[in-house]
Amino acid sequence: MDKTSSFSIQKGKPIRCKAALCRKAGEALVMEEIQVDPPQAYEVRIKIICTSLCHTDVTFWKLDSGPLARFPRILGHESVGLVESIGEHVDGFKQGDVVLPVFHPNCEECKDCKSSKSNWCARYANDSISNTRRYGMASRFKDSTGEDIHHFLFVSSFSEYTVVDIAHLVKISPDIPVQKAALLSCGVSTAGVGAAWKVANVEEGSTVAVFGLGAVGLAVAEGARLRGAAKIIGVDLNPDKFELGKKFGFTDFVNPTLCGEKKVSEVIKEMTGGGVDYSFECVGLPSILSEAFISTRTGSGKTVMLGMGKHAAPISLGSFDLLSGRTICGSLFGGLKSKLDIPVLVDHYLKKELNLDSFITHELKFQEINKAFELLEEGKSLRCIIWMDK
Amino acid sequence: MDKTSSFSIQKGKPIRCKAALCRKAGEALVMEEIQVDPPQAYEVRIKIICTSLCHTDVTFWKLDSGPLARFPRILGHESVGLVESIGEHVDGFKQGDVVLPVFHPNCEECKDCKSSKSNWCARYANDSISNTRRYGMASRFKDSTGEDIHHFLFVSSFSEYTVVDIAHLVKISPDIPVQKAALLSCGVSTAGVGAAWKVANVEEGSTVAVFGLGAVGLAVAEGARLRGAAKIIGVDLNPDKFELGKKFGFTDFVNPTLCGEKKVSEVIKEMTGGGVDYSFECVGLPSILSEAFISTRTGSGKTVMLGMGKHAAPISLGSFDLLSGRTICGSLFGGLKSKLDIPVLVDHYLKKELNLDSFITHELKFQEINKAFELLEEGKSLRCIIWMDK
Repeated sequence: MDKTSSFSIQKGKPIRCKAALCRKAGEALVMEEIQVDPPQAYEVRIKIICTSLCHTDVTFWKLDSGPLARFPRILGHESVGLVESIGEHVDGFKQGDVVLPVFHPNCEECKDCKSSKSNWCARYANDSISNTRRYGMASRFKDSTGEDIHHFLFVSSFSEYTVVDIAHLVKISPDIPVQKAALLSCGVSTAGVGAAWKVANVEEGSTVAVFGLGAVGLAVAEGARLRGAAKIIGVDLNPDKFELGKKFGFTDFVNPTLCGEKKVSEVIKEMTGGGVDYSFECVGLPSILSEAFISTRTGSGKTVMLGMGKHAAPISLGSFDLLSGRTICGSLFGGLKSKLDIPVLVDHYLKKELNLDSFITHELKFQEINKAFELLEEGKSLRCIIWMDK
Repeated sequence: MDKTSSFSIQKGKPIRCKAALCRKAGEALVMEEIQVDPPQAYEVRIKIICTSLCHTDVTFWKLDSGPLARFPRILGHESVGLVESIGEHVDGFKQGDVVLPVFHPNCEECKDCKSSKSNWCARYANDSISNTRRYGMASRFKDSTGEDIHHFLFVSSFSEYTVVDIAHLVKISPDIPVQKAALLSCGVSTAGVGAAWKVANVEEGSTVAVFGLGAVGLAVAEGARLRGAAKIIGVDLNPDKFELGKKFGFTDFVNPTLCGEKKVSEVIKEMTGGGVDYSFECVGLPSILSEAFISTRTGSGKTVMLGMGKHAAPISLGSFDLLSGRTICGSLFGGLKSKLDIPVLVDHYLKKELNLDSFITHELKFQEINKAFELLEEGKSLRCIIWMDK
């Protein structure tokens, strides 16, 4: 397929297209015709092919107060698109390229982007408020009355066209099916595969416990399997997750409600002769983080925090548990540098080493987008792909 | 010097000698004649040449309740000695060897001792209660009435002779002056050099902040200097520590009382363009640990906890500070495997790369041992060497 044939080039001019607008917190998105301005310097205008829905979209959809609650807004941050046109000073992207917009910046020029130890772009990552990366509150979207529409996480993929800064854009191989690639722009790469691969650096033959078997927890298992972990224990209150979990590499399961008087950490210690090498908290509850922490082996255990509670409650850890050689760390975007590491994950997929297919439980047309919210909220979907042209 | 000439061999028989007994919590040690039994299987009887005093000795000297408070007892766990005789099944040690007893076990046979990732000997490290490693509460010491005397941390070096399990014993080069070597058996290696070297893995050109400039904090700086850190910031309330600190590689100092309305972490972030790569907490206060934690760089900062408060108060950390890519870990014995790593530190000393000399501020005779307690408690000494034969 000639992927460039499906849209007309409007370089330098505004484009009118459809977008699903969030006009009010928690209310159904409204399909409206909007105007998408041309990209400015260091920006790229993209025709979205497909997008998916993540819990972060739902969180911001519901958010009704504070500086981060802004309306009207175009949500969406997991997607794949084609470059329609580029602004000035854009190197490395050209019209027709298949691209993955990512919420986590990677400017490639700051101290941290140049360091092998960090994926926290010092130049940009501290600003999560702006609409556009280099132009503050300036928006590239207008509704039919000419009012500015807010961007979301520098992506805004619930629109046929969007404008993204090159610090948030990764060029990918056209060989990977776009709906699979879309998963790599947030949940799967972020919290999951990257956390096992880059943050924990899980090694062959090791033991792993994952607390919470949502998409993130399943992706952690997939990452741990990819790294050759010998035992991957899933912990969840919902036993239905266990059958699904087997597809992602889980070898054992613990249901906290069936542990009797034992703590989950005690059960895990018995299963592993003293504790797992790595534990991952994918729920976002301090009490679960604490249990994940003490489930690891004294002297060498490492815990990765992937979830965060609503109110960012402080974390409390036993001082002797830490002093006796344990490590705890957190990461955003799975410790991955998007431009460097996402192409590696694409390559793993193309070599059939990485299972992305099983994450996609539903596919919908763009006009059915509100149903995707329902499916996710009801716990029925892992990832729902929303096709813009269908 | 023929180091074996200074004592007569009593292999298989009890030895009568002098020891400084702790008969009651907090009371001056009493010099008494005791009996030291022959070593049993896997044990070695040692003639102590010199010992030094560490804060942990003082803590247990004062401890007046709980299962760890036991009297009469022979304290002391930093020392160097000569092998007087060996029990059955002792390989690798022979009469006359220069040896370093260490409180932290290294059996060399368990899963953790065989792993490169851990220094927490799973076989032995969880038992800190016993007198002798393989024989529980059995003691090798008796007082003049025949009553058992308790051991301390499997070492008990405040005695002319002691009995130590081979899991707690390292053979060292006779080339290093014994009083320098003694420092490697606890404070310096443990909390200090090892933490910078093995636990944090400080790299060339990095930035470091050390909270608390006691012997441990100074040793961290020494370890960071050895690894080529570019900037080593010392944080202490006592400005007298800064002049001393320069000898150990500190390049900058922050006195919290002179920071005005700014937090120490804010000052450190300004000094380093966003935070240090590594921070070390050597005081043992949760509030200081929290400040050390947020002094590190977002996305890659690592904090090592070396101190622990009296009541093992839980640690509280900001969840977003952790989630945004920071790491915190603890370690005992500086992450070192005694038998493998102490000889490496001895080698660094012999090559004049590691400064041990500046830690020794005082030297005393054995009968003056109570003065060593006073000097440490008054903050006048870093390390006081106590010579058994002088």
